[in-house]
Amino acid sequence: MKFEIIKKSKENRARFGIIKTPHGEIKTPAFIPVATKATVKALDPRDLKEIGAQVLLANTYHLYLRPGEKLIKKFNGLHKFMNWNGPMFTDSGGFQVFSLGFGIEHQVSKIGNIFPDEADQKKIREQNLEKFAKIDEDGVTFKSPIDGKIDRLTPEKSIQIQEDLAADIILAFDECTSPLHDYKYTKKAMERTHAWAERCIKAWSRKSVLYGIVQGGFFEDLRYESCRFISSLDFPGIALGGSLGKSKKDMHQIIDWCIPNLPEEKPVHLLGIGGIDDLFECVERGIDTFDCVAPTRLARAGYLFISPEQGGNRKNKFRNSIKNSSNRTSKEPIDKNCDCYTCKNYSRAYLRHLFVNNELLYFRLASLHNLRFVLRLMERIREAIEEDRFIDLKRDWIG
Amino acid sequence: MKFEIIKKSKENRARFGIIKTPHGEIKTPAFIPVATKATVKALDPRDLKEIGAQVLLANTYHLYLRPGEKLIKKFNGLHKFMNWNGPMFTDSGGFQVFSLGFGIEHQVSKIGNIFPDEADQKKIREQNLEKFAKIDEDGVTFKSPIDGKIDRLTPEKSIQIQEDLAADIILAFDECTSPLHDYKYTKKAMERTHAWAERCIKAWSRKSVLYGIVQGGFFEDLRYESCRFISSLDFPGIALGGSLGKSKKDMHQIIDWCIPNLPEEKPVHLLGIGGIDDLFECVERGIDTFDCVAPTRLARAGYLFISPEQGGNRKNKFRNSIKNSSNRTSKEPIDKNCDCYTCKNYSRAYLRHLFVNNELLYFRLASLHNLRFVLRLMERIREAIEEDRFIDLKRDWIG
Repeated sequence: MKFEIIKKSKENRARFGIIKTPHGEIKTPAFIPVATKATVKALDPRDLKEIGAQVLLANTYHLYLRPGEKLIKKFNGLHKFMNWNGPMFTDSGGFQVFSLGFGIEHQVSKIGNIFPDEADQKKIREQNLEKFAKIDEDGVTFKSPIDGKIDRLTPEKSIQIQEDLAADIILAFDECTSPLHDYKYTKKAMERTHAWAERCIKAWSRKSVLYGIVQGGFFEDLRYESCRFISSLDFPGIALGGSLGKSKKDMHQIIDWCIPNLPEEKPVHLLGIGGIDDLFECVERGIDTFDCVAPTRLARAGYLFISPEQGGNRKNKFRNSIKNSSNRTSKEPIDKNCDCYTCKNYSRAYLRHLFVNNELLYFRLASLHNLRFVLRLMERIREAIEEDRFIDLKRDWIG
Repeated sequence: MKFEIIKKSKENRARFGIIKTPHGEIKTPAFIPVATKATVKALDPRDLKEIGAQVLLANTYHLYLRPGEKLIKKFNGLHKFMNWNGPMFTDSGGFQVFSLGFGIEHQVSKIGNIFPDEADQKKIREQNLEKFAKIDEDGVTFKSPIDGKIDRLTPEKSIQIQEDLAADIILAFDECTSPLHDYKYTKKAMERTHAWAERCIKAWSRKSVLYGIVQGGFFEDLRYESCRFISSLDFPGIALGGSLGKSKKDMHQIIDWCIPNLPEEKPVHLLGIGGIDDLFECVERGIDTFDCVAPTRLARAGYLFISPEQGGNRKNKFRNSIKNSSNRTSKEPIDKNCDCYTCKNYSRAYLRHLFVNNELLYFRLASLHNLRFVLRLMERIREAIEEDRFIDLKRDWIG
């Protein structure tokens, strides 16, 4: 892997670059669609190429449980197995283990968003989920949600699984903390993450590129310490891990603490974040890559992205609910400015009809739109950085 | 509409022809994928063009209930609404009304296949469904399964809805009987269907092409009478309606009774039939077009079509269950001889992984394969008729 920075903004930390991998280039800042179980939900690789997806991220934990990394290894890895020939990331499983453990205990972020809304919190409470994961110095013991079997992940095991999955870029195994953890616990978890980082490097065969993960929660000195430590190791790239605080403001603060303390020549990934406003705020602060399930998950739930020209703004989160009765007879596309197959060919009325009838075609057309919307926004962000007008673009979108 | 017969078999009633519609040609014998609610489940029109779909059939009853034909009329009909620019059929709603009425009372064919298997029959019994529809001389009163409201279909209403939906080819409103009905009831229903046929012709604006429907159950004299009567009316095409008896043998007998008693120059559609063996048996007996939900429904349920070279035969109904553990690690495609996107790019192992994880992509890849399989078989059947080797092809497939 090579990371080339082509243009740096003069006014802020935004930068336009290229990550070169054996499966092709990733122009950054980049949004990475999530292919949790070796498929971006409802889309195939032709769709993904068509909408400009450069790179995908698959989940180690899910693929370890089903179908198992050994099967995927028989296909020489994920690329062949899932028929995607572009660059790929895998995560380390750390976040999913957090979800099963403190995510449940603290009733936060069970479903992957760092800032669970009230409905999510209520769902977590009502499910009265059992805490599934226990962390010790050596690794994590968890109960498989599939068969209830006790299983274990360690830094070495995570690297082995990821090397069997054979993505281009893999992540170190970390302990993701909760925003409700105190200083003492967060420090202890960070130190464990550091020890695990060293073990990951030891276990790593260097066939893939390995990113280290910075932890430290919403504590300035811990973030500094973690940046220093992770930067001192032989990682070609860095990821910022959660907890990212209790609000978007906290998250921005954390990024502002970290970026100046990381080596400029290494690409920086922000784990699991990707709201429309986040993309602007975090690119401005120096983030190079994002992964997030939001565009496809929102699409399936009936929320379709709209640009400012179509009424999208920070308050409505750039979303139109396809179920709205105002869409019932609308011949308009979701977004007149969008160049996706869905917007070029289908009315809101038709999409609403598919959605209320739970028709499978809806999920594909909606996912195509939401992902294309985000990927195109990233194209515009890259252009704007190159042409020194990122701040103008940001103002046009989020004020 | 024009129907041109290009080649007639010397040994049997199979024929190769072309139906010309304002939206393009249909080479016959043709299989018509079903787009129940204005979408072939899980596929978009690009997919359908790619796999060689010439024509689709949408369901009047379902679209009348949701989203309502008036909305679709605002789009000048189904073509624009669903973004399909090829030929289209709509059915008349008669079969769905049967499903809600005698289908439930007689515990047959609730879900669209004329020969319900034991599992279907059990399901119907267990659901203990209320009989929803009542037939009188003027039409049918039914309870909407969506909101429980009492609603009504008549021949005139069915034609009005279909003309609003604006398919190229529409069907007369008939009373579909059950295989359990006796001679007396079947005769009465047939006479009602004939009276309704005349009313449909009266109500018909001639913007679309209207097919008449032959009824008469498994009674030779009634089928003769119905063929004579329906042929005497001004219908440009004819459909054979159910009941088609209690077995495939009965169905073949019914077709053999009807075809010689229908005008040779009119295309003949067989309603709701489309098993692999049926396609051969019924083409041989003179059927020109088929519609059936089986390929897509089976795909969604995990049954994928395989050719004789891959072990497909009459006994296994040319199906491989993707769930089979033998597929768990298989790098082979579903069918080596298939030219579909799924078989060209995906292993059985990957498809099985998607299926057991209920991944949305599975439904699309599986539906693509099953439909392409059937459409390609029809291409081969047409070629074989043209080259006077239909019987050889039939022998190779079903013995």
